[in-house]
Amino acid sequence: MSAPLLGQMMDVPLTISSLIAHAARHHAHTEIVSRRVEGDIHRYTWRDCETRSKQLAQALMALGVTTGERVGTLAWNGYRHVEAYFGVTGFGAVCHTINPRLFPEQIAWIVNHADDRYVLFDTTFAPLVDALAPQCPHVLGWIALCDEAHRPQMRTEALCYETLLAAQDGRCAWPELDEKQASNLCYTSGTTGNPKGALYTHRSQVLHAYAAALPDAMALCARDAILPVVPMFHVNAWGIPHAAPLTGTKLVLPGKDLDGKSLYELMEAERVTASAGVPTVWLGLLAYMREAGVRFSTLERTVIGGSACPPAMLRAFEDDYGVQVIHAWGMTEMSPLGTLSKLNWEQSQRPPEARRALLEKQGRVIFGVDMKIVGDDGRELPWDGVAFGDLYVRGPWVIERYYRQEGAAPLLDGWFPTGDVATIDPDGFLNITDRSKDVIKSGGEWISSIELENIAVAHPAVAEAACIACAHPRWTERPLIVAVKKPGAEVTREALLAFFEGKVAKWWLPDDVAFVDELPHTATGKLQKLKLREQFRAHVLPGTLAAEGCPFDEAQSNTQEHAEKPLAQRE
Amino acid sequence: MSAPLLGQMMDVPLTISSLIAHAARHHAHTEIVSRRVEGDIHRYTWRDCETRSKQLAQALMALGVTTGERVGTLAWNGYRHVEAYFGVTGFGAVCHTINPRLFPEQIAWIVNHADDRYVLFDTTFAPLVDALAPQCPHVLGWIALCDEAHRPQMRTEALCYETLLAAQDGRCAWPELDEKQASNLCYTSGTTGNPKGALYTHRSQVLHAYAAALPDAMALCARDAILPVVPMFHVNAWGIPHAAPLTGTKLVLPGKDLDGKSLYELMEAERVTASAGVPTVWLGLLAYMREAGVRFSTLERTVIGGSACPPAMLRAFEDDYGVQVIHAWGMTEMSPLGTLSKLNWEQSQRPPEARRALLEKQGRVIFGVDMKIVGDDGRELPWDGVAFGDLYVRGPWVIERYYRQEGAAPLLDGWFPTGDVATIDPDGFLNITDRSKDVIKSGGEWISSIELENIAVAHPAVAEAACIACAHPRWTERPLIVAVKKPGAEVTREALLAFFEGKVAKWWLPDDVAFVDELPHTATGKLQKLKLREQFRAHVLPGTLAAEGCPFDEAQSNTQEHAEKPLAQRE
Repeated sequence: MSAPLLGQMMDVPLTISSLIAHAARHHAHTEIVSRRVEGDIHRYTWRDCETRSKQLAQALMALGVTTGERVGTLAWNGYRHVEAYFGVTGFGAVCHTINPRLFPEQIAWIVNHADDRYVLFDTTFAPLVDALAPQCPHVLGWIALCDEAHRPQMRTEALCYETLLAAQDGRCAWPELDEKQASNLCYTSGTTGNPKGALYTHRSQVLHAYAAALPDAMALCARDAILPVVPMFHVNAWGIPHAAPLTGTKLVLPGKDLDGKSLYELMEAERVTASAGVPTVWLGLLAYMREAGVRFSTLERTVIGGSACPPAMLRAFEDDYGVQVIHAWGMTEMSPLGTLSKLNWEQSQRPPEARRALLEKQGRVIFGVDMKIVGDDGRELPWDGVAFGDLYVRGPWVIERYYRQEGAAPLLDGWFPTGDVATIDPDGFLNITDRSKDVIKSGGEWISSIELENIAVAHPAVAEAACIACAHPRWTERPLIVAVKKPGAEVTREALLAFFEGKVAKWWLPDDVAFVDELPHTATGKLQKLKLREQFRAHVLPGTLAAEGCPFDEAQSNTQEHAEKPLAQRE
Repeated sequence: MSAPLLGQMMDVPLTISSLIAHAARHHAHTEIVSRRVEGDIHRYTWRDCETRSKQLAQALMALGVTTGERVGTLAWNGYRHVEAYFGVTGFGAVCHTINPRLFPEQIAWIVNHADDRYVLFDTTFAPLVDALAPQCPHVLGWIALCDEAHRPQMRTEALCYETLLAAQDGRCAWPELDEKQASNLCYTSGTTGNPKGALYTHRSQVLHAYAAALPDAMALCARDAILPVVPMFHVNAWGIPHAAPLTGTKLVLPGKDLDGKSLYELMEAERVTASAGVPTVWLGLLAYMREAGVRFSTLERTVIGGSACPPAMLRAFEDDYGVQVIHAWGMTEMSPLGTLSKLNWEQSQRPPEARRALLEKQGRVIFGVDMKIVGDDGRELPWDGVAFGDLYVRGPWVIERYYRQEGAAPLLDGWFPTGDVATIDPDGFLNITDRSKDVIKSGGEWISSIELENIAVAHPAVAEAACIACAHPRWTERPLIVAVKKPGAEVTREALLAFFEGKVAKWWLPDDVAFVDELPHTATGKLQKLKLREQFRAHVLPGTLAAEGCPFDEAQSNTQEHAEKPLAQRE
């Protein structure tokens, strides 16, 4: 057989600079509006943004930064951060966005692991930089994102961003890069071990931007104004700073003020039509709006992800404010978009409650990503909405390995193990039921810790709850609820256990409840279940001492359905 | 400087098989509905389509077709043609769609130039195949798209598509191909010379599909049903058969019946939301609807391209039927989408008439394509909506050279010369004013033949008109109108010339009018201006015999503004 016949199309690489060049040329007058840390509102256009991005590229090259080197950012959502997205990557360096909410030691570890040459920082983070600088000897310079007048008081000798830019004219063409070159670097803030870096490519980011802009994703167009509440240090603000120039969308950047009032006022002032963020910020926004008795006049839709969107929030947005909620799922390792909850035509014709039930799931993949769920035996599970297994993903914006990580690549047969456990229904709708490491493996079957936690927090006396696996001599693991009571509220172990009855299969019923004053969390607010499991390692479930001899006991009563479970779902 | 740092993302190629695989997996139950040449309506799903596409791939491999070889199609828009799109390309062969409306000698030339191994044909084209077969000795077999019961009477010994498929099980995985492999081949039907082939790649087609689905392009989603009236033999039906599986859109295929009644009834029966086609078919549809007094109940928008959309049609769709018209421009050499007329936010706030004027232009580029206009001196012209020059394009779905064409590649500094002449306004909106070869070059300045033709046909007595360049001793070229009168209508040369006054700059006024009984057209209905220019080669413009001595004469009176023209616009 002869060599494959190649087509005869132009060899134009997919580069991040082509995004900003497109916006500057074809959406020249569309605005980027930022609430600055200086306190005022700043506005300019995509064309201005490209010119200044080029000035930044020139300035970094003048400082000696070369292609492939990393430049870090510690910054809020603002126009200078956007310039870093394009200025750093445009000449072939790597834009490394750092989460300033991590502990300083974690940040120092990340800066050193990434081997950042320079770090751009918002003046808010001057004290943080003072703490970091002595621990990061390889950083050649810290660049304050301000002009001379706003230079912060600090011990570290910092460069001034505006002074660096003023020395450059911005008159240069973006070089044509290999689309598989590294462009962006983000570290995951795992709950265990050191953070791990995802090193994106120009190609992966441009393809992700195409997908993110699709009608069944964020549906971005040149009549939209999008306000990403999701930080630009969190997986590239879900790709919005790349998708906006691709579509000529106005970008509205809230800076550091993410309280309900600030967000609401900015949305109204800048006729924001779309937004995106984690559930927590929306709680604040909705609370403010209820209190102030105000309504959205332009907001049409918001993407909610990062953690599962509570059904009550979905209803509040849709029923009370007429705003469409787009529930989404993704992860740092996938740039991050994987699935979005948008109905197909047939689904859209179902009764309201059935539609709502679908919208509460994480939704369907966008083209580019494929997914599958796999059982303990490594076999793919059916898409019946019942069987749940380890979720694997694949696609051009999914990582192949972590940056500078020793050992084997994480892939299995070319698929990335997400660490999530999920069901997929016959419509291809994903429903995340647990993290792999948190799922409770009882008698060879899996119990979702998240589902049990959701029930626990629905109890009026429970403020927060975690469900963890507790060792069991017969069933290997059984669920234990660790709960924090609401101030002044009272509930007994027995009453809380009884609360589960009828809500889940009998063999899913928790074996025990432990009340604590507080649950352990990471710097970014994630529940530290590993710590909790260590804390409860010695916990003895009721009946298990007797159960070693395998009589009929209390634990058994919860698990007698095991024998009758529909095994088919996992085969 | 060290080698560029490569990112660490999965190396997943962009292949056409990934489009159908995505639809089969994630939009399994969404339908493809076809009006068959057999006369009935056929319906099945994207999942069925993938299975049968795989059967076709297996059948072609069994016939000895190997990767890189061409398989031709002579077919209407129908599900078997869709199977050819995916079955042929899925294993690495090239799907070569042939325009059956060309003259048989042209088709034979194309089949032989492409060196097609097999040709799939709708039974409608059995007589055409009988005419072609003796002229195409390298074609190993002609495959009739039907079952045994519907085999047409013909001299040529044809294979039966359904019999070939029935021998295969469709159980195979698509091979992973190099995304730069050839996937599709389309020939342009030029008005001069032999047809030229555009050889697309898997990469170019997938990127084009992403772009075509964007909100500011066709805005396709999983709640849409799209009916491409544009034939699948015409630049891959503008990419719709690729964009539909990418977005999970229902596909409705009208077969050979493109009259107003048939289209309308299919649209209503299949809740069609979007459509696409050339102006001519919409004339028929609108005429039928007016006559029958019916309205659309689901159609939301239609893409109109191929030739400029008459303003009256735009108004009729929008004002009378509430259907959004998306005026688009592209060409075979660009897969074909280049620009679409969708407003940005600022434009959408202008008064209705100003908005309409914008929508009558060809619009803005979608991300991926860039464009520029260039003057005679090779310098880029300003985007002021006035200066007009040769239009160049660039992007990953624009050709680099024609298939098997001798000599230099057509590109200039990496840009493809479209052969169109255009203005671009400050909003980046393209307005095609002429074909390069038709523009009239008078005294170093350009006059748009199309603009003068549009004025001529606006005269109530004129049925059709062409404006061509006529040799002029002083100004090199001057415009001549060649017109066909409406049956029974009357208009004099002087009256028609007077009709232009006040509608264009004085030096644009045509120098003469010639009336003819009919204008020459190509097989696909394009005006043959070259033939017309040959016909009028000896035509003497009034006053030019005297003008050789350069007195003040009639021609001079039309061109005296030349000296005062705003030269700045072209510098």
